[in-house]
Amino acid sequence: MNDWNVCVYGGVEHLEKRFSFKKYSRSLAFFNAVAGLAETYIHHPRMVLEWGSLTIAWGTHESDQGSGVLAVDRELAEKCDQLYELLKKQS
Amino acid sequence: MNDWNVCVYGGVEHLEKRFSFKKYSRSLAFFNAVAGLAETYIHHPRMVLEWGSLTIAWGTHESDQGSGVLAVDRELAEKCDQLYELLKKQS
Repeated sequence: MNDWNVCVYGGVEHLEKRFSFKKYSRSLAFFNAVAGLAETYIHHPRMVLEWGSLTIAWGTHESDQGSGVLAVDRELAEKCDQLYELLKKQS
Repeated sequence: MNDWNVCVYGGVEHLEKRFSFKKYSRSLAFFNAVAGLAETYIHHPRMVLEWGSLTIAWGTHESDQGSGVLAVDRELAEKCDQLYELLKKQS
């Protein structure tokens, strides 16, 4: 799990990574794939879409296991890396 | 055009507004509608999707007309308000 950095949003630690794209349509496709992942897990990241990049931050605000970067956040960050590779065009 | 505030991102003034949602699926639908608008105008906002809200910021980084909040940014901010009303469920 590379290039995920710890950031704080709303007083809660998150794992954050910026993914770069040359085409807006590609960043939008990745965004929607991550949104699908979020809905499946009922755990929603902070996502910033700008021209050229999508920045994703995973953190838990409140849960029985506490707040901050929990196991589910690390799992979903790793799944984002896998999803990014999976969506890459082969040629 | 209500509740749009001036913010600065990357040294450039933007018009920003936070739209609230009770359901993630609704915020996602609005997000994608705004992305469609952005692609149509070939002018892309900064959008932050979090559980419960979508924050949209329109600004121009570089153009023949200069940078900051230009006519196109005001036009697209207004269109976001219209799109938000249009996507509201009637019942």
